Amino acid sequence: MPSTLSRRLTAEFLGTFWLVLIGCGSAVLAAAFPDDANATGIGLFGVSAAFGLAVVTMAYAVGHLSGGHFNPAVSLGLLLARRLPARDFLPYVVTQVVAATAAAAVLYAVASGKAGFSASESGFAANGYGEHSPGGYSLAAGLLAEVVLTAFFVLVILGSTDRRAPQGFAPLAIGLALVAIHLVGIPVTNTSVNPARSTGQALFVGGWALTQLWAFWVAPLVGAAVAGLAYRGLTGDTGTTAASREGQPVEKARSDAADATVDLTAPEAQQAARGRD
Amino acid sequence: MPSTLSRRLTAEFLGTFWLVLIGCGSAVLAAAFPDDANATGIGLFGVSAAFGLAVVTMAYAVGHLSGGHFNPAVSLGLLLARRLPARDFLPYVVTQVVAATAAAAVLYAVASGKAGFSASESGFAANGYGEHSPGGYSLAAGLLAEVVLTAFFVLVILGSTDRRAPQGFAPLAIGLALVAIHLVGIPVTNTSVNPARSTGQALFVGGWALTQLWAFWVAPLVGAAVAGLAYRGLTGDTGTTAASREGQPVEKARSDAADATVDLTAPEAQQAARGRD
Amino acid sequence: MPSTLSRRLTAEFLGTFWLVLIGCGSAVLAAAFPDDANATGIGLFGVSAAFGLAVVTMAYAVGHLSGGHFNPAVSLGLLLARRLPARDFLPYVVTQVVAATAAAAVLYAVASGKAGFSASESGFAANGYGEHSPGGYSLAAGLLAEVVLTAFFVLVILGSTDRRAPQGFAPLAIGLALVAIHLVGIPVTNTSVNPARSTGQALFVGGWALTQLWAFWVAPLVGAAVAGLAYRGLTGDTGTTAASREGQPVEKARSDAADATVDLTAPEAQQAARGRD
Amino acid sequence: MPSTLSRRLTAEFLGTFWLVLIGCGSAVLAAAFPDDANATGIGLFGVSAAFGLAVVTMAYAVGHLSGGHFNPAVSLGLLLARRLPARDFLPYVVTQVVAATAAAAVLYAVASGKAGFSASESGFAANGYGEHSPGGYSLAAGLLAEVVLTAFFVLVILGSTDRRAPQGFAPLAIGLALVAIHLVGIPVTNTSVNPARSTGQALFVGGWALTQLWAFWVAPLVGAAVAGLAYRGLTGDTGTTAASREGQPVEKARSDAADATVDLTAPEAQQAARGRD
Repeated sequence: MPSTLSRRLTAEFLGTFWLVLIGCGSAVLAAAFPDDANATGIGLFGVSAAFGLAVVTMAYAVGHLSGGHFNPAVSLGLLLARRLPARDFLPYVVTQVVAATAAAAVLYAVASGKAGFSASESGFAANGYGEHSPGGYSLAAGLLAEVVLTAFFVLVILGSTDRRAPQGFAPLAIGLALVAIHLVGIPVTNTSVNPARSTGQALFVGGWALTQLWAFWVAPLVGAAVAGLAYRGLTGDTGTTAASREGQPVEKARSDAADATVDLTAPEAQQAARGRD
Repeated sequence: MPSTLSRRLTAEFLGTFWLVLIGCGSAVLAAAFPDDANATGIGLFGVSAAFGLAVVTMAYAVGHLSGGHFNPAVSLGLLLARRLPARDFLPYVVTQVVAATAAAAVLYAVASGKAGFSASESGFAANGYGEHSPGGYSLAAGLLAEVVLTAFFVLVILGSTDRRAPQGFAPLAIGLALVAIHLVGIPVTNTSVNPARSTGQALFVGGWALTQLWAFWVAPLVGAAVAGLAYRGLTGDTGTTAASREGQPVEKARSDAADATVDLTAPEAQQAARGRD
Repeated sequence: MPSTLSRRLTAEFLGTFWLVLIGCGSAVLAAAFPDDANATGIGLFGVSAAFGLAVVTMAYAVGHLSGGHFNPAVSLGLLLARRLPARDFLPYVVTQVVAATAAAAVLYAVASGKAGFSASESGFAANGYGEHSPGGYSLAAGLLAEVVLTAFFVLVILGSTDRRAPQGFAPLAIGLALVAIHLVGIPVTNTSVNPARSTGQALFVGGWALTQLWAFWVAPLVGAAVAGLAYRGLTGDTGTTAASREGQPVEKARSDAADATVDLTAPEAQQAARGRD
Repeated sequence: MPSTLSRRLTAEFLGTFWLVLIGCGSAVLAAAFPDDANATGIGLFGVSAAFGLAVVTMAYAVGHLSGGHFNPAVSLGLLLARRLPARDFLPYVVTQVVAATAAAAVLYAVASGKAGFSASESGFAANGYGEHSPGGYSLAAGLLAEVVLTAFFVLVILGSTDRRAPQGFAPLAIGLALVAIHLVGIPVTNTSVNPARSTGQALFVGGWALTQLWAFWVAPLVGAAVAGLAYRGLTGDTGTTAASREGQPVEKARSDAADATVDLTAPEAQQAARGRD
């Protein structure tokens, strides 16, 4: 039987793999179909939906195990908001990057089943700025968009998993936030808000995608950090343990508290562990 | 630690900022992409989804703090339906207008990262009638559409947050109502139903957008007022305190009632404060 | 204060008005925008979403008052499944037809705000078969599609409001079923499954639309009757009172049972009135 | 009154019929409308939504009766994960194939109502690889995509119906997973992940569709088997009885446990039968 941390990392692997396979897969395989005239392809709206629904579905499926981050920026935001134990942060991030790369490899194998496919020529859904921005947006515009969109993404995560929010709806709210973010951001940077997703695709594109990859680590992490640090002060959050994330019933959180890895010495966390009474 | 009113205004700021950034951002950046032929752009359906999902997500994230209005017309409707304390009305509206303007500024900065962008030439998602209606609809048609659509929007808000409705689903119903409204209204006025959203964009477009702005204050406020005043008589609503909005569990509403700012002297409100038993 | 029946009819009026305004409004105003080349219009997918989201939103808003039928075929199906008191049937149907006609009138007024609009030339989202089928489908194909789609629509309504189904999700399931139905049926008949929706539009188109209107009463009513009569036998339904429809909490259903108009002499209904224990 | 197994098979018949009628029906009738230029048709995004919403809606309607598989691969995955009694497996699969074929027949009748329709010439939404892949993808790419997508589909089903996941949301998560899967897979194989859906359409297309049908039994079953066998080890699942699938309240599961057909001798299953206390 796997240990608690290994189960959490398994959940993060599966969720991140799914996010990249579905999100980037829809962009590579189906956005413009049968060709650029897009007679029946899913377009940017369909790609936006794919990214978000991947998160909705896997957050309901395994979010109760790991919190359902699937994204190093989210893990940083939750760490700074005291929702993720510090010792889990690096294992989470490494797992997410490995999973995104594995998903990009599977996507590469499927896409290569069509004659004439080339990751570097197609762009392979990598993120970019300047001449590699889908709409030709500058680096400054790209950084601004990524910082702001990631900050609000983390805010939606923190807020919808707050004990004061309706229970059970957080995976839906979080995934639909990712749909909304892609509806705005694809023309600017192809939308990252997730350094793992950016890394996996860039490794297969190489060249410019690796050169520009720094921006899709820096901007999402900065945005997430701002949101994670500001949340408690802005909203009066009184703390939520890792075990009560993602709409998990409070009764469950209570029984899980004994083996939770979160630091329970903080008064707020103790209150959370006692449940809502 | 912020005061209760300041937390509520923070929530209104964040939600309105998000609504405008995502809704108007999707229209400005992604509706027609890469150009008017819209080979892969999100189109009016994608823009409609963006406006609505912005509300779904932030209503789940911060709606439990402020009620999740993000819109002066909604605040007026809830005031008249006795769901918002009178002393909160003006602070809410001012915050919403400031937030919408701030979001328009961020959107302006991002959009300016593409060579050749001009807010006035692109329209910048401002609302308009007559020659500035996207489909060339008259002022009378625009006013009629805005009044009716806003009235039903407020009706959905009041009804889905009624204590008799299923708990927890209100943010979803409210946001999806905004999707539905945009699916009908964009060709007529670019869809306002929200004076704050109209004001922020108009300030950056100037000229005709400011000249026509009055219509997008008057019509939404009239529609919202009709719905707010009629709701109780039509449906037999027996009152809901501010604290029990947005699917918040009744147990929470009960404990919050002590510091709620709503007038608890009305018999219905007292009943609401006692919870559902 | 309005009587219980008058509140229910008010809810049916508001819901049916909204369904027609949004559903048919999106088809008339936004499906092909700016023109038939549909560069950015919402298309048949957007129209499908509009019909369904109108039902999702108003079912959450007023479904707890009236059951949220908004459709004579649905009322017939629920009558035959013993979920609607017989004496409510005719008032419901008359209210639904009046509401649909009122919504068509408002839509006509808005659409007329654009130069060159003609209800008869545009089709005004009326339902048709043969040469008036959007895709040129025969009367037989239209009748078959309408019967089958309406039967399954009523099945989803009966099943998702069954006491054994997850509570609170019925409005979502029902509205999304209407999206699914329109995704299939628009090319065949423009999709009715709702005689009230068909009648309101036909009155403004006149001519062929009135001549063909019989089909959009007969086929939906036949489909709904089949589903309503078969449901109990197929699924082992043990009865649900009118008061416990639409995800209403059982506690509420219990307290409402005293003034419910449903026949409580049937053993199953008595069991339902006692709640789930 | 029907027996328990006959009710379950009725539910599987209705759900599978609906899945094929809506999913394949949207592809055949509405994907490219009025023609291949797709001026207003629903495209691959609309088809993806149709498949998924069919599952969302029928899983809420009848999922509490049968578990809502509607798919032989899902039944295999649940069998191997010990969520389906072994003696139910073959009856489920036979019912699903019969239902899919019946739905294809109804769709064939409707589609034939338009002059010039031919199932074999149109493809009739059958699944294919190589020269019959919509995008010209190889057999290897098709098998890889189908195995991986089905495995994750079953993972979402197992995870979202796990007792640790939020209750009531499983039908939504499962159906939205099917949307996501189609957003990626249609260009590769037209997306099966469901041998029953593939069989019904292939019978009406004949020729190549029957010749290639083996792939759409083998790949989904392999993917589902992998997920079903791996789930418990990966996530630490402690067992869930058939009666507590699909968000059914635990109180109901408890009372149903006496007549459940699942093997209750395993300690985990006994714990599940006692409910969450």
